Amino acid sequence: MLKKYIMSPGPTEVPPSVLLRTAEPIIHHRTSEFEKVLASVSEGLKEVFKTSNSVLTFASSGTGAMQGAVSSFLSPGDKAICIRGGKFGERWGEICKAFGVEVIAIDVPWGESVDPTSVDKALKANPDVKAVYSTHCETSTGTLHDIQALGAIVSKTPAILVVDAVSSMGSEKCLTDEWGIDIVVTGSQKALMLPPGLAFASVSEKAWALTKTAKCPEYYFSYTKARKSLEKNTTAYTPAVSLIMGLDEALKIIKQEGIEAVWTRTEEMGKAMRAGMIRMGLELYSKRPASALTSVNVPQGVNGDALPKKVRVEYGLTIAGGQDELKGKIFRVSTMGYADLMDVPMALTVIGMALKELGFDAEIGRAIDAAVEVLYAYKVRKTAK
Amino acid sequence: MLKKYIMSPGPTEVPPSVLLRTAEPIIHHRTSEFEKVLASVSEGLKEVFKTSNSVLTFASSGTGAMQGAVSSFLSPGDKAICIRGGKFGERWGEICKAFGVEVIAIDVPWGESVDPTSVDKALKANPDVKAVYSTHCETSTGTLHDIQALGAIVSKTPAILVVDAVSSMGSEKCLTDEWGIDIVVTGSQKALMLPPGLAFASVSEKAWALTKTAKCPEYYFSYTKARKSLEKNTTAYTPAVSLIMGLDEALKIIKQEGIEAVWTRTEEMGKAMRAGMIRMGLELYSKRPASALTSVNVPQGVNGDALPKKVRVEYGLTIAGGQDELKGKIFRVSTMGYADLMDVPMALTVIGMALKELGFDAEIGRAIDAAVEVLYAYKVRKTAK
Repeated sequence: MLKKYIMSPGPTEVPPSVLLRTAEPIIHHRTSEFEKVLASVSEGLKEVFKTSNSVLTFASSGTGAMQGAVSSFLSPGDKAICIRGGKFGERWGEICKAFGVEVIAIDVPWGESVDPTSVDKALKANPDVKAVYSTHCETSTGTLHDIQALGAIVSKTPAILVVDAVSSMGSEKCLTDEWGIDIVVTGSQKALMLPPGLAFASVSEKAWALTKTAKCPEYYFSYTKARKSLEKNTTAYTPAVSLIMGLDEALKIIKQEGIEAVWTRTEEMGKAMRAGMIRMGLELYSKRPASALTSVNVPQGVNGDALPKKVRVEYGLTIAGGQDELKGKIFRVSTMGYADLMDVPMALTVIGMALKELGFDAEIGRAIDAAVEVLYAYKVRKTAK
Repeated sequence: MLKKYIMSPGPTEVPPSVLLRTAEPIIHHRTSEFEKVLASVSEGLKEVFKTSNSVLTFASSGTGAMQGAVSSFLSPGDKAICIRGGKFGERWGEICKAFGVEVIAIDVPWGESVDPTSVDKALKANPDVKAVYSTHCETSTGTLHDIQALGAIVSKTPAILVVDAVSSMGSEKCLTDEWGIDIVVTGSQKALMLPPGLAFASVSEKAWALTKTAKCPEYYFSYTKARKSLEKNTTAYTPAVSLIMGLDEALKIIKQEGIEAVWTRTEEMGKAMRAGMIRMGLELYSKRPASALTSVNVPQGVNGDALPKKVRVEYGLTIAGGQDELKGKIFRVSTMGYADLMDVPMALTVIGMALKELGFDAEIGRAIDAAVEVLYAYKVRKTAK
């Protein structure tokens, strides 16, 4: 027998009570019973998003709602700034191009976060830009962009700020309304502790105004249609009923802890993970690391493709390797969602043992000490409250 | 306590073993473990679709794959014939229009099936038509279009035949390759016995050729990208992992019975349901009824909106009312998917009792006798095999 752990930056572990809720006998989506659940999760999502705007739900992965965040708001030939510092930042550029939107790219070296003044400059040089597309937590590099700073800049212009918060919503502090973010997109399989298959998006009035002139074609991911349906407590097309039932349970778990407490727990676990990795003798990849996941350089001499596979197959722990240009060069461990303190020393131990097997002399005990230093202080503080 | 039954034409009942499979701890989608499942379900779907072409899987409802069946194959200004005989036939027209495709509409009165010669004529009058969009089983009316006849006509032209088989795939005989259907789209929550959230599509070589010239914008529902990913045994974007695990189990159940036997069971149940409804004193709505669902006129003097609600809330049975222009005028009962012989007399009895309460003198015993006549003959034949 091999006990299984999943600490990849999506999908993440789903709490047993959520899994069981998704397995309840299916109910019809055009019934008052389902409408009640939809109304309840829509309210719960607003609290997680920290927005007073409605949060739309789509049956798709996060990329689907990203497509709608372009096609429902812009027209072919419109200009958009795309901040590209990883696979998911690049995705904004790809979607814009697919819909004929002119991309003004701000390319950030992978692993670094965008300099907000570069966005300010680009907006000044292109006052006709309709939207700025950014990533919050760039999952491919484990890097957090400073969305609060971007919000302060973009909100002063006619452009809207659209943020891919797929791996940050519910793991990193994100004050949608206060920071002036117009559209925030996320997915179910990260900090929201669900299986993949749902995407969510909140939209500001400033963004809704753009839909009046938007000419890109769209049907399934029409935000306008989704909004009209939600006003009647329903969805435009058949919703992923079982996942929405699971969401209801997941949001109850989040509400019980409190979203601010969830952010703090994730932050402390990220801190502990980074401290452990460094003390183990490894180097962090990201220059501005997220709490949601930790990205680490594969040490010299170690086969970077072999590590995640060994860890998964022989130790039962799913982590992720690098994607695209980072394939074989980094590995990524998540601390978001249904992850608790003891997952950090477990993951550090597994990775340390696997690295030993692959020829790297990992300092496991020292790594655990470093992580425990952070976790112990956090635990004691929490108990004292 | 109130025992629950779901016989709406989607979502349909999900077998307990499928529900449990969807509730298993989540696994990562970029692993050999998941790749094996994806390869297996893709093969299983080919058997259900009766095609040798690959069957693509999307995380979305059926409408999403319908969008891709337009946007991945056509260009703005292209001409398409849309057969519109209900809410879902109309949807093809709406999607085409959203993407700037010129719609040549063949409007069929709701409840009737298309006259194939009208399609032949339209194709001859418009030899530059790129695609013919049809519904197989029109779920809003319970009517089956003669796709075999359409295939024989369209396959002789340069146009492709695209079929919405959302409620017919796995319930009605559909010989994709033999009948010359180029694209067949279906969803998970009907005869495939799954929760909603997955869409599937098979594509012929004739249809793939169109992707080379297609200029409609699309990202998430790009069939080309989905195909390239499937060739590497993966998906372009995060798949709905838990639903795909459930699909693996559902396909095993279908395989064990044999898809031809599933069609026969559905056919006999539909026949029994129709015989029962008529003998109860009701009128069928559809002129060419499907087996997947039975649509029935609400008898005069009965409140058509009250019936499905009463049946669900007081008897525990979910059926569907009419949609759009048929709201309050018909009710619909499904016999597809995880539905077995005894569901027919149960549904007839519930509906008969509820109709009595609503002022219609339903002949319940006679209805059951009529249904049993069909079911008994089928049962005896099956046992004799």
